[in-house]
Amino acid sequence: MTAAFDFALEASDGRARTGRITTPRGEIRTPAFMPVGTAGTVKGMLPESVRATGADILLGNTYHLMLRPTAERIDRLGGLHGFMNWDRPILTDSGGFQVMSLGALRKLDADGVTFKSHIDGSKHRLTPERSMEIQRLLGSDIVMCFDECPSLPADRDRIAASMRLSMDWAARSKAAFGDRPGHALFGIQQGGLERDLRAESAERLRAIGFHGYAIGGLAVGEGQAAMFDCLDYAPEQLPADRPRYLMGVGKPDDIVGAVARGVDMMDCVLPTRSGRTGQAFTRHGVVNIRNARHADDPRPLDAACGCPACRNYSRAYLHHVSRAKEIIGSMLMTWHNLQFYQDLMAGMRGAIAEGRFDAWQAEFHAARAEGDIPHP
Amino acid sequence: MTAAFDFALEASDGRARTGRITTPRGEIRTPAFMPVGTAGTVKGMLPESVRATGADILLGNTYHLMLRPTAERIDRLGGLHGFMNWDRPILTDSGGFQVMSLGALRKLDADGVTFKSHIDGSKHRLTPERSMEIQRLLGSDIVMCFDECPSLPADRDRIAASMRLSMDWAARSKAAFGDRPGHALFGIQQGGLERDLRAESAERLRAIGFHGYAIGGLAVGEGQAAMFDCLDYAPEQLPADRPRYLMGVGKPDDIVGAVARGVDMMDCVLPTRSGRTGQAFTRHGVVNIRNARHADDPRPLDAACGCPACRNYSRAYLHHVSRAKEIIGSMLMTWHNLQFYQDLMAGMRGAIAEGRFDAWQAEFHAARAEGDIPHP
Repeated sequence: MTAAFDFALEASDGRARTGRITTPRGEIRTPAFMPVGTAGTVKGMLPESVRATGADILLGNTYHLMLRPTAERIDRLGGLHGFMNWDRPILTDSGGFQVMSLGALRKLDADGVTFKSHIDGSKHRLTPERSMEIQRLLGSDIVMCFDECPSLPADRDRIAASMRLSMDWAARSKAAFGDRPGHALFGIQQGGLERDLRAESAERLRAIGFHGYAIGGLAVGEGQAAMFDCLDYAPEQLPADRPRYLMGVGKPDDIVGAVARGVDMMDCVLPTRSGRTGQAFTRHGVVNIRNARHADDPRPLDAACGCPACRNYSRAYLHHVSRAKEIIGSMLMTWHNLQFYQDLMAGMRGAIAEGRFDAWQAEFHAARAEGDIPHP
Repeated sequence: MTAAFDFALEASDGRARTGRITTPRGEIRTPAFMPVGTAGTVKGMLPESVRATGADILLGNTYHLMLRPTAERIDRLGGLHGFMNWDRPILTDSGGFQVMSLGALRKLDADGVTFKSHIDGSKHRLTPERSMEIQRLLGSDIVMCFDECPSLPADRDRIAASMRLSMDWAARSKAAFGDRPGHALFGIQQGGLERDLRAESAERLRAIGFHGYAIGGLAVGEGQAAMFDCLDYAPEQLPADRPRYLMGVGKPDDIVGAVARGVDMMDCVLPTRSGRTGQAFTRHGVVNIRNARHADDPRPLDAACGCPACRNYSRAYLHHVSRAKEIIGSMLMTWHNLQFYQDLMAGMRGAIAEGRFDAWQAEFHAARAEGDIPHP
């Protein structure tokens, strides 16, 4: 086992980059998409199946795990990797974003956040120090700073104050994280859609020094155009030799646009959540498998996809089990979506490595414009 | 592919028997337990995982499939085997039992049953002829006669009239089934707990002639002792050289008792349904994994079991995902239960073949009496 956390850029094409993060638990090929395993499971998937799609790393949610089964319990049981049977890298968020989303259930002060559990109403507190402790107890490979993030739109003063609080918390997170060989701590850039605030945030983070840098506070309702505008400068405000992680993104075209703008890592619940409601991502756009037009269709969801849903079943079957709310519907549709996302990342990595990312993007957009295969 | 449906007894030990049913789609080792794939899926399992537990045959439900996605649609798509990606034998029930369970939603006459769908209230009709047609459209390997079954307790006159109606329907089922090489039609003995009515039913069925004979109308509330009393004579009223199928049974000790009394085939939703509610079947009895005593238990559910739930996860993990109602909880617990049931059948087949079934039963009951492993 390599003891160090490291990042090596291997090629770039325009602003897009491909490379490799090294951790003691295995390599992460970038650009990387991280499936979300909120509560110790990627919903509807066995971990070996997640790995079979090509995922190198999962994301776990501090907020959910601290409430149930609790970080202390996971620690006693030997850590999150063994608990959920995933021995490769895990990134955990800090709990900040999800606690902020609780609205009336949480109360923010300069030191941290007090909140009530959505499960049983019990009272809890998160601070930068406690978030670092929880992520250590979980055994996370990539730990995220505890931060605060306003939902957009918000006025500039609110965004600036929030960003500066998050930068104070980033310094406290770094101090609390300490030095843990083989484990990485990522800072999170904030500043909303304000270029100068993003620059100030990036400077604060660089001064503290992190193993990687996340772009936070996007994909919170601002729309793709505004997000892309921000991504036209935000990644380049961050160190070029460290991984850049765009949090909570996104739809396939969001991901492609983010990679084109220099992002190396992403995560999103969309492929898993959509699978459970009958939405499939394909080269030709989104297919709602519950739509009546699929009821008699003997063809696969996507003949070019190698996932079990596409290899072994018809659209008619997927339509049936998804409409009947059978568990296998969630299982197969989730598998397909995760496979699609990982194939997307592999396609981009190959295209960037070979200097043909523009052509790859043109093909990606052309296939989507074509639309789904017509009714037989 | 062998063209014929056949049954060969290989050994017996007391009244218990072991053998092999041959079908064009593969062999069925008996005593056999058939997992239930109600609506074109064994809930929570991929079919290759069902096969991995050792299942040779699945059961499909005519009632559910005729309503959704409909038998005609499955026929157009090439049959149930391809539709659900299970190329081995499938037995379908006739729809009779489930339609009778609809209570106020169904109306019985001498020709058949009219009923309303539990899904959308639409009106449907089943007769012996229509049930045979549906099971043919599904592509079922083992077709069941359309019958009627009163719930117990019921008075003798009601049971006798119902049995005689079912025997008339058995003759009509046979005529409608015709001659379909490689496909089998099973008659269903009725008669409640009345030995002479069971004998009369068996005589009527023998006179018509079937590839196999089911024991119907048990496991409907009469209790294990009454069921075993009935199984002390019912199987032997049926031809010894044909498979005997006890419908809808049961708990592990029901199954062992039925095999000891000469039953060759069984089906039940218990292992799958229980898996979804956190109940695990083990050598030491039922374990409710949601019980708080498992929350910190690092040990496997059953160290002797080879299923993924037992190989890769702790009781603490299964407790967590089952309590949190995560899909993987249903997946893993169902897999375990189906593995337990198939291991049970394999154990009995081996013991009968080697003439040590009494000793096997003694061990089975002793392990259950021991109870679950104590809290660490």
